[in-house]
Amino acid sequence: MYTKIVLVDMDGVIADFARGFTEGFQKKFPNHEIIKLEDIKSFSRVDEYHEKFGIDKEQLKDIYRAKGFFLGLKMIPGAKEALNDMVREGFKVFICTAPSEAYKYCVSEKYTWTEQNLGPEWIDKMILTKDKTLVKGHILIDDNPHITGVIKDPEWQHVLFDQPYNRHLIKDRLVDWSKWRTVCE
Amino acid sequence: MYTKIVLVDMDGVIADFARGFTEGFQKKFPNHEIIKLEDIKSFSRVDEYHEKFGIDKEQLKDIYRAKGFFLGLKMIPGAKEALNDMVREGFKVFICTAPSEAYKYCVSEKYTWTEQNLGPEWIDKMILTKDKTLVKGHILIDDNPHITGVIKDPEWQHVLFDQPYNRHLIKDRLVDWSKWRTVCE
Repeated sequence: MYTKIVLVDMDGVIADFARGFTEGFQKKFPNHEIIKLEDIKSFSRVDEYHEKFGIDKEQLKDIYRAKGFFLGLKMIPGAKEALNDMVREGFKVFICTAPSEAYKYCVSEKYTWTEQNLGPEWIDKMILTKDKTLVKGHILIDDNPHITGVIKDPEWQHVLFDQPYNRHLIKDRLVDWSKWRTVCE
Repeated sequence: MYTKIVLVDMDGVIADFARGFTEGFQKKFPNHEIIKLEDIKSFSRVDEYHEKFGIDKEQLKDIYRAKGFFLGLKMIPGAKEALNDMVREGFKVFICTAPSEAYKYCVSEKYTWTEQNLGPEWIDKMILTKDKTLVKGHILIDDNPHITGVIKDPEWQHVLFDQPYNRHLIKDRLVDWSKWRTVCE
């Protein structure tokens, strides 16, 4: 039987990075204006806050470099049910995530997050790589509009996970997790 | 120009896991007989010590589950020079490693080990995955005799990194790092 391999990104797809960043920003700059989640225009939280408000990039990066940031991210609604349904229906599902360059807490917290939020059986399905073009699969569900690497023509079909900052693009899109069958079947 | 992608395993190939395990064993069981490095027969240290001496597997696993185990591993001679030469000569080199199921210290220590022993430019070349058949590449240099996963016919050619426990196999083999050109070119 033909088995479809589905690669699923983590931040912005199953873990709510933008919300976590915004909450971290509010703690660090309690009286500062925020960029509302629905108004986010750029894939990079750091770039957007820096460009809009002139805040130092290192201070912004400290928000996600902090211990507990990745572990504390909320699950994106429907992600857990969708991933478990995929597995039950015979898809080979892997979590394919590019760790932050500040790996100190990020990498182990990504594993702990997965164990705590999805269950220990998901630990072996994790792939950490900066370059996702090197990973084989039929579909990559990712919120990042531009995924590049050493392979110019990756195997997978990129399905955008819908986020305010990628809505300007005309591309295969997963609007929310309840619709996963429409893009995977 | 055609660029060759070389995937390089970590434990037993660039980081001396067997030596680290043996030293950890000697600390934990100071008066116990050890299996000398040249006499190792099995890919799994835990299985071999368990079968030979009847030591509880969990106690054996605690050796590499301990904080600092992976970070403390010695570089396998010639690995650093070979990896840097490969990059200089135009190969695309990635470190492709399967983390221990006890990920608590292992995953972040693998990143720190790489930064400290190979340099920060190698951090972005790391790929952590239990299933290496999912990674694209021309060559995989790995000491593990049997690499399996969801892809039955992986893209890469498996070159065995020579170790006492894989010497019984007739397969393309890298005898030591100074000979890397013979298997990569």
